[in-house]
Amino acid sequence: MTTRSTTPRPAHTWCPPFPVTGNELQVGGVAISRLAQRVGQTPFYAYDRALILKRVQTLTEAFHGRIAVHYAVKANPMPALACMLAEAVDGFDVASAGELSIALDAGMPPARISFAGPGKGEAELSQAVAAGIVVNIESMREIVILERLSQTMGCAARVAVRVNPDFELKSAGMKMGGGPKPFGIDAEQVPEALRAIARSGLAFEGFHLFAGSQNLRAAALLEAQTKSYELARQLSQHAPSAPRSINLGGGFGLPYFPGDQALDIDTVTANLLSLADQAARDLPGTRLAIELGRYLVGEAGVYVCKIVDSKVSRGQRFLVVDGGLHHHLAASGNFGQVVRRNYPTAIGNKMGAADVEEVSVVGLLCTPLDLLADRVVLPRAAPGDYFVIFLSGAYGASASPQGFLGHPRPAEVLV
Amino acid sequence: MTTRSTTPRPAHTWCPPFPVTGNELQVGGVAISRLAQRVGQTPFYAYDRALILKRVQTLTEAFHGRIAVHYAVKANPMPALACMLAEAVDGFDVASAGELSIALDAGMPPARISFAGPGKGEAELSQAVAAGIVVNIESMREIVILERLSQTMGCAARVAVRVNPDFELKSAGMKMGGGPKPFGIDAEQVPEALRAIARSGLAFEGFHLFAGSQNLRAAALLEAQTKSYELARQLSQHAPSAPRSINLGGGFGLPYFPGDQALDIDTVTANLLSLADQAARDLPGTRLAIELGRYLVGEAGVYVCKIVDSKVSRGQRFLVVDGGLHHHLAASGNFGQVVRRNYPTAIGNKMGAADVEEVSVVGLLCTPLDLLADRVVLPRAAPGDYFVIFLSGAYGASASPQGFLGHPRPAEVLV
Repeated sequence: MTTRSTTPRPAHTWCPPFPVTGNELQVGGVAISRLAQRVGQTPFYAYDRALILKRVQTLTEAFHGRIAVHYAVKANPMPALACMLAEAVDGFDVASAGELSIALDAGMPPARISFAGPGKGEAELSQAVAAGIVVNIESMREIVILERLSQTMGCAARVAVRVNPDFELKSAGMKMGGGPKPFGIDAEQVPEALRAIARSGLAFEGFHLFAGSQNLRAAALLEAQTKSYELARQLSQHAPSAPRSINLGGGFGLPYFPGDQALDIDTVTANLLSLADQAARDLPGTRLAIELGRYLVGEAGVYVCKIVDSKVSRGQRFLVVDGGLHHHLAASGNFGQVVRRNYPTAIGNKMGAADVEEVSVVGLLCTPLDLLADRVVLPRAAPGDYFVIFLSGAYGASASPQGFLGHPRPAEVLV
Repeated sequence: MTTRSTTPRPAHTWCPPFPVTGNELQVGGVAISRLAQRVGQTPFYAYDRALILKRVQTLTEAFHGRIAVHYAVKANPMPALACMLAEAVDGFDVASAGELSIALDAGMPPARISFAGPGKGEAELSQAVAAGIVVNIESMREIVILERLSQTMGCAARVAVRVNPDFELKSAGMKMGGGPKPFGIDAEQVPEALRAIARSGLAFEGFHLFAGSQNLRAAALLEAQTKSYELARQLSQHAPSAPRSINLGGGFGLPYFPGDQALDIDTVTANLLSLADQAARDLPGTRLAIELGRYLVGEAGVYVCKIVDSKVSRGQRFLVVDGGLHHHLAASGNFGQVVRRNYPTAIGNKMGAADVEEVSVVGLLCTPLDLLADRVVLPRAAPGDYFVIFLSGAYGASASPQGFLGHPRPAEVLV
């Protein structure tokens, strides 16, 4: 058996926030082997309550109540997690009637829930008006429908205008504003939309701008936030009433991949506070908000599989686990990524072991796409050991094709 | 409003096999608008019974019973479709206990069901032995487990050896053999595996080779099939008994994208018949088999959404539909594709309309990934019209993150 030559790979700069006791990773204060026993199955996702709350607290303390922090439920719609966050953040943003139901069940007051999405159906809009939440209007069509629904139901729909800005978020993982876009109303058409809202008697709440997501460059975020604020301020002149809220979006990224550098959050929060100062002068009564999904929950989650097999094929060792891309599409590199890169991973019950080897970790699906770690150095592992994928708290379970190939679904626990 | 300059794009060579009556696409003999009423919701997947059966019949007639045709359930595990195919094909290949249950419920005799997958769990292997199906062994570990289970249950597990060949399928969309791979047992280790099978008293059934999938080049498939047969023939010398079956895999591609040319199926079937001639001389009593998923069902399926909104942003028209990547990940270009390309699409109730325009079609998810057609020329459409994505019979509903953003799941109908 010959050994393959190994290519040196860039390292992850991200450090897991979970303590290690003995050789065991601790999630929510529970050793990973014990947690697996408690869950009663692998694979599972585990989310660390304390880490999520600490992340929220750090932001809300920095903001002193001057910037509202909203949670984008799409990042992780687990009901228990939503219940926990309903107590900790200022508002929820939902993307469907399904998420609306989770948000209401979690106890978030309707006036602090907003609903965005380019293809809202009439039934969803009707549910939104009945619930009394804020609809982020994405097209003139929605104004017409909401006017009719408001009259039928005898209560004016609360609306904010989602603006497609005339700039885009540089270096964002996903651009959602600037140029022709399906999201929101083009900035130059917003005055017309505001007049239509006034005529229709809808309850104007404010503006929503979302220039892009998964951005690690503070300078790019600063520029987008500052421009977004300035655009909203100008558009306010056309509004039927002063905006109660200007949602500047999110886009705070996480350093998933080798070579990624963590976002400089202090610079970003300082800029937001400076914008809040401006808003206090320009638009008294208007509160700025940001909307974060991934940044609040992503680092606090792990995906845990059990190793089923360890085999050598032509000099390369493969660990086969009982999970795969059907549970965690993003970690396999198949969800919108152009180049596949490794998430940070570990053997959760052999942390810090000195005896390491180079392995590739694959899921149990019968497809070469199901690659969870490509030639990484991990402690030598055997069937029964726990393979852990970090940075799995957002866009994991819900963003994966769980029915693919008919295997069981993952469990999810909040610890 | 200025008009964007349009980039000419390569055209699809694929022609929809569905007739058109008036302006209506007919699926399973039903006009698309009527079908949508019958289903009672959009979005839905519809699979045309007659087209699937015709595709199977064309192959089985060409083979005159000398090559067995197996269906890979993973391509489309809809139970009614599996029931229909159980009557039409010679065997099923499953990838999980979930798919095994569908295959058994469909009435496929257990001896004609095989089970492949690199991470089979003990519980799944136990179910397979109890059912009496053929397990495609992918590692020495499985032999050990199956020996124990056979003794416990008092019946010898039926096994075939999945071989990781020492060559790979050129130009395949996904390579699954050659070099170091997690699938199967390296060809050079197979004699040892065969000895272990003999010692363990397992019931040896044959070999399974699968060099890759989604291949449009007949020459590449020919080479892989011929080499696979030759490898299996050589390995047969080490087998405890003559193989009853040699499964040469599949890999027959479909021309999804602009510029793709359809596979020359006649050349492929001629080569398989020539290999069957060789097998009749070399290995009397051994039947060759091929295993097809996408090729049997892919062209016969459509994904149908309703248009919810039509809006112009900075000169570009967007149609927003009530479906999206959560139902059809592959059509959005986000499932393992490096470059996003358009599937063939249509406005199902305005077929052949002369009044056309360039549009982008987006799903209703709040993400720029949710792009279903990028600047295509379609009949001018309005809310209420039906947007159809062709080539959606395989790896559609089951291979998509249906829970993403909390929208309803698509319906599926066999017409």
